[in-house]
Amino acid sequence: MRDAAIALKPLVGTLARDVTWGDCDPAGIIYYPNYFRWIDSGTWNLFFTAGLTPERLRAEYPDMDMPIVSTQLEFANPAPFGARAEVRSYVEHWGGKSFRVRHEIVRGDGAKLGAGSETRAWVRAAPGSVMRAEPIPESLKSRFLVPA
Amino acid sequence: MRDAAIALKPLVGTLARDVTWGDCDPAGIIYYPNYFRWIDSGTWNLFFTAGLTPERLRAEYPDMDMPIVSTQLEFANPAPFGARAEVRSYVEHWGGKSFRVRHEIVRGDGAKLGAGSETRAWVRAAPGSVMRAEPIPESLKSRFLVPA
Amino acid sequence: MRDAAIALKPLVGTLARDVTWGDCDPAGIIYYPNYFRWIDSGTWNLFFTAGLTPERLRAEYPDMDMPIVSTQLEFANPAPFGARAEVRSYVEHWGGKSFRVRHEIVRGDGAKLGAGSETRAWVRAAPGSVMRAEPIPESLKSRFLVPA
Amino acid sequence: MRDAAIALKPLVGTLARDVTWGDCDPAGIIYYPNYFRWIDSGTWNLFFTAGLTPERLRAEYPDMDMPIVSTQLEFANPAPFGARAEVRSYVEHWGGKSFRVRHEIVRGDGAKLGAGSETRAWVRAAPGSVMRAEPIPESLKSRFLVPA
Repeated sequence: MRDAAIALKPLVGTLARDVTWGDCDPAGIIYYPNYFRWIDSGTWNLFFTAGLTPERLRAEYPDMDMPIVSTQLEFANPAPFGARAEVRSYVEHWGGKSFRVRHEIVRGDGAKLGAGSETRAWVRAAPGSVMRAEPIPESLKSRFLVPA
Repeated sequence: MRDAAIALKPLVGTLARDVTWGDCDPAGIIYYPNYFRWIDSGTWNLFFTAGLTPERLRAEYPDMDMPIVSTQLEFANPAPFGARAEVRSYVEHWGGKSFRVRHEIVRGDGAKLGAGSETRAWVRAAPGSVMRAEPIPESLKSRFLVPA
Repeated sequence: MRDAAIALKPLVGTLARDVTWGDCDPAGIIYYPNYFRWIDSGTWNLFFTAGLTPERLRAEYPDMDMPIVSTQLEFANPAPFGARAEVRSYVEHWGGKSFRVRHEIVRGDGAKLGAGSETRAWVRAAPGSVMRAEPIPESLKSRFLVPA
Repeated sequence: MRDAAIALKPLVGTLARDVTWGDCDPAGIIYYPNYFRWIDSGTWNLFFTAGLTPERLRAEYPDMDMPIVSTQLEFANPAPFGARAEVRSYVEHWGGKSFRVRHEIVRGDGAKLGAGSETRAWVRAAPGSVMRAEPIPESLKSRFLVPA
């Protein structure tokens, strides 16, 4: 009964990023593939935030990996050299054997730079074997919820 | 009447790529943001194939740029260090002020690595002015068609 | 006489960096070309620290650029995924028409990761002209000194 | 006596590279850290050329790795978007437990873009142990010589 009273919301990981000289293309704005570097880092940072460093992941879930299945981003405003931004990441959907991470990229002045998602599979990837998707354990999912 | 008899198909640009040591993540497979580097190059290579080098683009369409609006990729098979691949790119849709480039990434042995698209706007980007989308000229579109 | 009493030392710019998943090669340690991304950013960050944003640089020294002439790094300890580091950068030598920036990369636990330098020329790079090195103005150099 | 009659020279690996949009910085020329991506690939390509794919390396020299010790490049001419180049790599010095690879980067029109070297150690890197340099076997060195 009391459990029902505890509202939960997704854990959000935040990552600071700045646009460097080498991130910019000849048009002087960020080269868009770098945003995918940022959101990939956003996912790993979300796992860090949930207490799952690479060592912990390996120890708790040996041989498991989370390869990318698909990803997409929409771009709103350009980011020039020197711009500061924040990547906000959370799991927006847990499927049976895959999950979708939502990423929102916001410029220092509050302007939206881009938003989208990554879908990743939860797979067993033992050396020498074929990768095979497996059900995502509840113990993993529960780490990504916090009191609302 | 005779024009109707000439079947046309999209011009396809092809780009050879190989997976280098630095393209691979600790799992030993290609780090997925690199695929976006490849497809961005695929679009520029398609323009090259159509005769539109950066110099020609600037000369024929001064102050015009084609910033990314959105992009997505689905991933099929992993590519390890040393793998060779081909990026095949063509315009799959011409909108009024934007266009969508389809990209297919195929491993040397024929296995599909990934596929997806980029949507880009056709914008006037004069220095010091706000970017504004403009209708894509027929002269541009016609370069991307070849006899079927 | 009084000037002689004011000891000066080089301004040091510091930049925080963390090793992301995509920075690591299949051996699980940072892919070394990324260190050059870091030190290039270190130089631009040093200019920021000296008050020279890209806008200020363009305004105060129009058409001037500072292309790389040579660079070298020595590597001391590996940095795995998740490692945090600091890049410390300062001008260690002002030549007539070039300057050398020293970079030291230190891991969060104090271990030295790498050290080296970039030599850059001070050149006039007006559009359409050949680049030509010019004497570095005293007004520029003086920004990179602080009381010892 | 007869051995003395066989002149040998270093095996040279060559790697084609093109400057993509995303390789260029806002000045429209190649972002220099990318040259280090190229020369790192040049070393791996040299090993491929010598018949040492990653699989062969692992099979013949298990647990051995060749981490970077130091590297330096000098830059001669800029390379704009669309430029084609070749990276020529060969071992210029075999030390006891380390070796130095020379890299020359030449633009399609023959102009020199850059040149320099990488020094790498030959180390035992068994999982869970500290890396330790070991003497480079003659069997390895002999693969990098060809009749003059």
